[in-house]
Amino acid sequence: MIYLDNAATTYPKPPQVSAAMQRALRMYGANPGRAGHRMSLRTAEAVFQVRERAARFFGAPGPENVAFVMNCTQALNMVIKGAVKQGGHVVTSCLEHNAVMRPLETLRRRNVITYTEVQVVPGDNDATMDAFRKAMQEDTCLCVCTHVSNVWGIRLPVERIAALCHAYQVPICVDCAQSAGILPISMAENGIDYLCAPGHKGLYGPMGTGLLLALNGASLDTLIEGGTGTASESLVQPEEMPERFESGTANVPGILGLGAGIAFVQRMGIQNLYEKESRLACGVYDRFKRSGKVELYTPRPEPPYFAPLLSFNLPDMDSEETAAKLDRHGFAVRAGLHCAPRAHAFYGTLDRGAVRMCPSAFTGRAQTEAFADAVLQIAGGRH
Amino acid sequence: MIYLDNAATTYPKPPQVSAAMQRALRMYGANPGRAGHRMSLRTAEAVFQVRERAARFFGAPGPENVAFVMNCTQALNMVIKGAVKQGGHVVTSCLEHNAVMRPLETLRRRNVITYTEVQVVPGDNDATMDAFRKAMQEDTCLCVCTHVSNVWGIRLPVERIAALCHAYQVPICVDCAQSAGILPISMAENGIDYLCAPGHKGLYGPMGTGLLLALNGASLDTLIEGGTGTASESLVQPEEMPERFESGTANVPGILGLGAGIAFVQRMGIQNLYEKESRLACGVYDRFKRSGKVELYTPRPEPPYFAPLLSFNLPDMDSEETAAKLDRHGFAVRAGLHCAPRAHAFYGTLDRGAVRMCPSAFTGRAQTEAFADAVLQIAGGRH
Repeated sequence: MIYLDNAATTYPKPPQVSAAMQRALRMYGANPGRAGHRMSLRTAEAVFQVRERAARFFGAPGPENVAFVMNCTQALNMVIKGAVKQGGHVVTSCLEHNAVMRPLETLRRRNVITYTEVQVVPGDNDATMDAFRKAMQEDTCLCVCTHVSNVWGIRLPVERIAALCHAYQVPICVDCAQSAGILPISMAENGIDYLCAPGHKGLYGPMGTGLLLALNGASLDTLIEGGTGTASESLVQPEEMPERFESGTANVPGILGLGAGIAFVQRMGIQNLYEKESRLACGVYDRFKRSGKVELYTPRPEPPYFAPLLSFNLPDMDSEETAAKLDRHGFAVRAGLHCAPRAHAFYGTLDRGAVRMCPSAFTGRAQTEAFADAVLQIAGGRH
Repeated sequence: MIYLDNAATTYPKPPQVSAAMQRALRMYGANPGRAGHRMSLRTAEAVFQVRERAARFFGAPGPENVAFVMNCTQALNMVIKGAVKQGGHVVTSCLEHNAVMRPLETLRRRNVITYTEVQVVPGDNDATMDAFRKAMQEDTCLCVCTHVSNVWGIRLPVERIAALCHAYQVPICVDCAQSAGILPISMAENGIDYLCAPGHKGLYGPMGTGLLLALNGASLDTLIEGGTGTASESLVQPEEMPERFESGTANVPGILGLGAGIAFVQRMGIQNLYEKESRLACGVYDRFKRSGKVELYTPRPEPPYFAPLLSFNLPDMDSEETAAKLDRHGFAVRAGLHCAPRAHAFYGTLDRGAVRMCPSAFTGRAQTEAFADAVLQIAGGRH
């Protein structure tokens, strides 16, 4: 099987990830931060090292700004629901995943907030910025937007959006679900208040890991409270990061696996990975374009306006059917709506979805060429 | 090292757990429920099998009643915050962990609820039941209580409390943090509406796993919304279990590891484990009692009123100091407040905490005898 569903989760993982998880079970098997015995302390130290690594990777001020959660969705819920004020207004983009839209819509239906979806103009960041500026209101209490559309690979100018938010004194939360480990980003340099990321996509950690990075965690109300191993005598959740957002037992094997995944990305070089994967995605795009047999929606997915992923359809064929045919040819891709109906509305694919392919560090040109061959063969072309 | 901190997390895990997690990374590496290609389907099937196993284990009607979450604390937050009504009243016990108390206290401070802590009478379930009955109010919208005190091992008569709640038409949530895998419990037989459990304690799964079992998930408001891989066109979280409570990518390696852990408990026999571990805890209790050198707080920790764990102190010694001395002797135990200040208030140990030991399936009599020797040696006794 040739796996090109890396936008859902990367596969395979670097072998160091499995090794780190096995080591976690063997050597770091005590509950960190909960006891003073040596294995508990050793486990806490190992978790802390991953915290430090993640902080450096995302340009957070320090390891205490990094909280480990179950997935990016949980991190987004914690930020969105922790940051909004009763009666407030939220600015978001028109390309958001349901991990952003469903929490916003839930809050809207509970009469907590209103929100505006800003129209993004791919390839024209000035126009996009104008649209964000116009969406800002007196009562805007949060801006939350994706770094990269998980359906179309469109990259939002989050650095400029963050600067705009600062001018309006509105905190910004960036959903790095599709960009973490692929596009460089620095919280400190770009003034990003909250950054949410999955551990299991571009960071090559195991499924079940996610990151919530916050410049000032105390500014967020809590969504989940519980035992933190700190200030145990108090019934009030501590204000300190990261404990404020880490109630209950941590996913130690997952966190140590994630540490190995981030180390892998650091060793490969994020810029190298981005360029290599972009070349692969562009190569497929070019073949599709030349053939005239594939429905393409976006411009060529090249830096700096796109992340390396590509969604498409074949004429008169449902996306699920195309993906099923590709599965029979031995290619794993995802079809349908990718949990992002608003993004599909953007290019008018809400009824049929789209087929999405996404390379990873482990994808080679032979694989993407074979993939293009298979798609064009299904399309009936002779390329 | 002799590890007796099994009430924080069990160590070691059965070898099948690590094997299942490695297999997850190798063979079940796609995102389940997100695509139609074969590895995604295979992964979803593997996760489903664990769901079925967990449902059988806890006497839930079906696999759809089982949601996988990060830890028991997250499950408790989802139930408590999803079940309460504005202005409602909650009944809980006086022995709760901060995973229950901090969410309740947060809701109280936000003027959402009031709550009553019921006084438990160890060894006298009739008196305990009277106290629960008296706490019920017209506006009581939830009863949430622990199955077993994580500090004192005191077992609450949750079957009778559930019957009482049914009579009052109040839903009940049982916190099985310290009992899952140790005391048998059946949701269907006992009419338990919501059951929360960690995966990494008595179920021998990896840290980072937890279970939320609900008879009727649609009755709970959601705490976290996001992509579920279902009804993707809708901005409203689906009502269906388990998707309603499983937003974002699942912890597949953790879940498959948990499945191996539950299978281990099933193979060993939950009753056998309970009896064996109770004998070990009682053996230590008896030696402490005979010596006259150890401060014991509870009656002998035997079935059916206690789970097999034991908390104690040495005279004129802080619990942390005793644990540190034990660590130097090669024994891993936890001291302090165990994230449960209310339970410590119960026996007046809020100022100094207590030393807690807890055996597991992997603990033998030689280990607990050596532990008792070490404690008594530290106490200066000659036993």
